[in-house]
Amino acid sequence: MTAVHDEQSSRERELTDKVVASFAGAPDPRLRHVLGSLTEHLHAFIRDVRLTQEEWNTAIEFLTEVGHITDDKRQEFILLSDVFGASMQTVTVNNEAIAGETESTVFGPFFVDDAPAVPLGGDISGGAPGQPCWVEGSVTDVDGNPIPNARIDVWEADDDGFYDVQYPDGRVAARGHLFSDEAGRFRFWGLTPTPYPIPFDGPVGRMLDAVGRSPMRASHLHFMVAAADKRTLITHIFVRGDELLDRDSVFGVKDSLVKDFVEQPSDTPTPDGRDIGGREWSRVRFDIVLAPAQ
Amino acid sequence: MTAVHDEQSSRERELTDKVVASFAGAPDPRLRHVLGSLTEHLHAFIRDVRLTQEEWNTAIEFLTEVGHITDDKRQEFILLSDVFGASMQTVTVNNEAIAGETESTVFGPFFVDDAPAVPLGGDISGGAPGQPCWVEGSVTDVDGNPIPNARIDVWEADDDGFYDVQYPDGRVAARGHLFSDEAGRFRFWGLTPTPYPIPFDGPVGRMLDAVGRSPMRASHLHFMVAAADKRTLITHIFVRGDELLDRDSVFGVKDSLVKDFVEQPSDTPTPDGRDIGGREWSRVRFDIVLAPAQ
Repeated sequence: MTAVHDEQSSRERELTDKVVASFAGAPDPRLRHVLGSLTEHLHAFIRDVRLTQEEWNTAIEFLTEVGHITDDKRQEFILLSDVFGASMQTVTVNNEAIAGETESTVFGPFFVDDAPAVPLGGDISGGAPGQPCWVEGSVTDVDGNPIPNARIDVWEADDDGFYDVQYPDGRVAARGHLFSDEAGRFRFWGLTPTPYPIPFDGPVGRMLDAVGRSPMRASHLHFMVAAADKRTLITHIFVRGDELLDRDSVFGVKDSLVKDFVEQPSDTPTPDGRDIGGREWSRVRFDIVLAPAQ
Repeated sequence: MTAVHDEQSSRERELTDKVVASFAGAPDPRLRHVLGSLTEHLHAFIRDVRLTQEEWNTAIEFLTEVGHITDDKRQEFILLSDVFGASMQTVTVNNEAIAGETESTVFGPFFVDDAPAVPLGGDISGGAPGQPCWVEGSVTDVDGNPIPNARIDVWEADDDGFYDVQYPDGRVAARGHLFSDEAGRFRFWGLTPTPYPIPFDGPVGRMLDAVGRSPMRASHLHFMVAAADKRTLITHIFVRGDELLDRDSVFGVKDSLVKDFVEQPSDTPTPDGRDIGGREWSRVRFDIVLAPAQ
């Protein structure tokens, strides 16, 4: 913080107090608290960096551009929140650490509600291009008890870096849902995850470029896992060895979510005897531990 | 701040550190500093209020709406900055207190560069409806030396609460510029200021309504005063007795800027002998002290 002399400092402080007090009459106490705190932190930022009038102008212009590129298909404000780690911090705050539970990460914009049902051992790829990947694991509670019938939604980008919903042709691919068996186990065929960029042709991409950051996300496979009396888990698994792990553009990576996707030579028999046409494939294990519902 | 246990707290702190570190490679050290600080304060806000996922969604939707109502004529992001006192805090930070100088306040969106020249003692109203107001004063430096030839821009809303540029007919009214005389004095006819609301038919107006705040601005007359080797002053004067002084929607009021607009009965002779048609009028004195240029 830059030192400012007493009179100046008291002018600045008085102004902040006045704005906080202006929210004192809000009928909703939560709204009062949130907007009062937002005021404190916003003013502290302006004071700390001694924000110039020109920088303020730039911020207004930047936000205006973010607003104008945003439409039904493109959400630049979410990208902005993502690249400042604000989305991830919100996820972190809302999923309190409990000894042993699988950690959460960002939801992302590509989930859809009605992904197709696939049987245990089935294939979610729906024809999406990519290397086949056998995914298996278990769902348990924090005491190690298996959770049967947990609903497991999975979704991922294809080998070209796109989710099905990003294509204009209405395809449904590389997503699906299944249920854990009576012993809490699950297994399915998906695709070995590959990296892709967040949309970078807008103001957020320009900002990343100005600070020397990459728009790339580390390779990942999305999970949402729900079971009775358990906290719904929204997470990804990441690929050990991916060079993007320590610079994921949205800060979604957690060490505990990095898994071994073990490459299999093309002549390796598949776990379920499926003929995948002599291609190379990979396999990964993900044991999921659900926290109790709060 | 809500207490959080150690593991949770360290997950939150680590995330913030990671995001701050992501800006470390920015070639521009000022950008690195500003975005790092913004990250710290934004994350501190999310952590302090334990922002819920639903509140995050609401924030994204709100910002999206602010973006969509903003166009060439309507700047809802500036309104948003204004009602959080962020505009005023930026003004405060950029106009360091110096003993004796006239204080600054918000610029507002209604200044225009090429306001008409009016002679000393002339009328800036340009036919705008309102009560005539005689404005006089002096321009000096902080040691009391008169400043001749200072450029004084003045502008204000009319009696209906609108600036000329808010009308679609291209009128120029209730604005002008003049220069102080050889003794640093100035005088002109304007309008007695009246209160008006900031635009409140958008998301910012809805927010003010939700927290029980009024969109009204306290009555004021804008000044911008520029002279060689002096810090340009952007300010308003306010009307003593205005009931909105302590709840100006953009926090522009400072005690030192509240002036006596003295009401004059209709039979009072005008200072310059002008015939104003037997109407009531008012008069105010504003002595301006310019800080040295930095």
